[in-house]
Amino acid sequence: MPLPLIDVHTHMYLPRYVALLRARSKVPRIVSRKGGDRLIILPDEEADQSTSAGRPIGGEFHVVDRKLAFMDHHGIAISVVSSANPWIDFVEPGEAPALAAQLNDDLEEICAASNGRLLGFGVLALQRPETCAAELKRLARHPHMRGVIIGSAGRGKGLDDPGFEPIWRAAEETGLFVFIHPHYGIGHGLFPDTGHAMMLALGFTFETSIAVALLILRGTLERHPGLKLLIAHAGGTLPYLAGRLDSCVKNDISKNFGLPRPPSHYLRQCWYDSIAYHPPALAALEAFADPAKILFGTDHPFFRPHVGDDVLDRTTWPSPEENLQALSALESGRQKAIAYGNGLAAFGVELP
Amino acid sequence: MPLPLIDVHTHMYLPRYVALLRARSKVPRIVSRKGGDRLIILPDEEADQSTSAGRPIGGEFHVVDRKLAFMDHHGIAISVVSSANPWIDFVEPGEAPALAAQLNDDLEEICAASNGRLLGFGVLALQRPETCAAELKRLARHPHMRGVIIGSAGRGKGLDDPGFEPIWRAAEETGLFVFIHPHYGIGHGLFPDTGHAMMLALGFTFETSIAVALLILRGTLERHPGLKLLIAHAGGTLPYLAGRLDSCVKNDISKNFGLPRPPSHYLRQCWYDSIAYHPPALAALEAFADPAKILFGTDHPFFRPHVGDDVLDRTTWPSPEENLQALSALESGRQKAIAYGNGLAAFGVELP
Repeated sequence: MPLPLIDVHTHMYLPRYVALLRARSKVPRIVSRKGGDRLIILPDEEADQSTSAGRPIGGEFHVVDRKLAFMDHHGIAISVVSSANPWIDFVEPGEAPALAAQLNDDLEEICAASNGRLLGFGVLALQRPETCAAELKRLARHPHMRGVIIGSAGRGKGLDDPGFEPIWRAAEETGLFVFIHPHYGIGHGLFPDTGHAMMLALGFTFETSIAVALLILRGTLERHPGLKLLIAHAGGTLPYLAGRLDSCVKNDISKNFGLPRPPSHYLRQCWYDSIAYHPPALAALEAFADPAKILFGTDHPFFRPHVGDDVLDRTTWPSPEENLQALSALESGRQKAIAYGNGLAAFGVELP
Repeated sequence: MPLPLIDVHTHMYLPRYVALLRARSKVPRIVSRKGGDRLIILPDEEADQSTSAGRPIGGEFHVVDRKLAFMDHHGIAISVVSSANPWIDFVEPGEAPALAAQLNDDLEEICAASNGRLLGFGVLALQRPETCAAELKRLARHPHMRGVIIGSAGRGKGLDDPGFEPIWRAAEETGLFVFIHPHYGIGHGLFPDTGHAMMLALGFTFETSIAVALLILRGTLERHPGLKLLIAHAGGTLPYLAGRLDSCVKNDISKNFGLPRPPSHYLRQCWYDSIAYHPPALAALEAFADPAKILFGTDHPFFRPHVGDDVLDRTTWPSPEENLQALSALESGRQKAIAYGNGLAAFGVELP
């Protein structure tokens, strides 16, 4: 009998967002090409007119029934759906707060219609941080929303942006999660001729790690001990590097961060998805994190299987398979906690 | 009874090298300031005339008896001494090969006089890669030399520099180790106002990880399965990220590296020091690496204790203490293997 699963890391481009990307003439945008729509999210992809520019974007990215079909095929009982990068970070500041509210209302509506299968992480207009506390408080009254997803870059000044203090305060007060996720912020020029592989494997995880480490070193979790940070991709590299970070902070006499406790103390307050891809990383995560704060995730719909659209919804995707495989190295009680037990407690729901 | 230790990651600036740095008017150089000599190794430190520019450099960096005193205090039976960054990477190409040979002969002489306490990793003139194979073959005839240390940047084009192919071939043929170590190659501008802590904790480990991943993706270990790479600082982040790297390489349809096996296969051929600083990272390293290829290290003389010179040699340093502490979470046989058993086998020596 397979474990029921709660998937904390699973993305959608909501229909309103897809329409926005289709209407744009600048990156990020969706272009129709022979062979299907392509999502172009990096400026240097814009010049490439071939079908290899960007990545294919089909219904698995934006049709709710396709998400549910994926969940059914993989035994996922509940998904906490978040928008995928680049969120609304590119939107004109004057338009972003209203768009955030509309997208958040859209997602609430989708979740409400799902018979308990879907919960949501909303978006914030980070380009107008002074509007975000009110949106968080509004979100907290949506019955199916459990937090927000934000990019590692913040509004371009990192997550240790002093202007974000009201966001952390409101997130702490409302008890909403803040899901921290990378978006091509690190590594341009460092990995020539490596496709997406190095950027996604190393660039993404390094970006998240730097953003979260700076957030902690600036005292954010010291000031807001109740803040619920969920760190993408098994914490990037931080569960591995936390001891080294402690040592470097303690022994570097050139800088005193004024923190009463080592960085690892604050990192242990955070939540982590289990998207670790192999047992050694999961072993470190298990040894490092609070046992109640590791949550199963799939990163759907990324790394689409190399099959046609007609069979996609009946195909096993690599990321859930690889991450379930990694989980199977743990003892049974820990598998259950990560697969669904921790999620039920964290999000205050029951299995549907 | 404490475990005997073989320290695979311990640095010296050899006296000839210190004299060279003292004579220079450009970075890297050693300057005499009130309060002691300072080593300036980054260009942006050069403008800073305060005593906080660079880092203090005393006899613990270059006097052999001080290394032996450190070893005695910490129960280290044998040290495999390597030059510290930036090695000879800054030297004029015309002068570098002869300097490499002189420094390597100096180190052999120091080791030969140590009654079995010291072995050495030499340096190469990477700015003249066509000279390196001959130097490796010469080094292999030095009774106390066990390999070379090279920086992650290579000669500025990374370690996947096509010009380095003769180096890998000669290293494989001679059986010498190649110890891969970072040197401030990643992260400038990413960690403002964080002293050295973020650069050393995250920048160094990210730099090593990128360099080694590229080396593997370009097929170096596929072409040279006998090449003995020793990866600094517990492999940077690679033991944690290896599964993710496998998945990204396998599932990214935009690039085919043409490797018959996943990156983790080649990463498992590598050696790792145990400089992990906390049990969770060591758990991942243990779960990932070949059990015979994890070797104890201290990173001496970095993170000097905050004490006066007069008591330094009788003071316990943080890095060996923290890394021994991390080791103590393992079962006894594994502690012995990492502490000295693997080192005896890898370097073909006996405890003195």
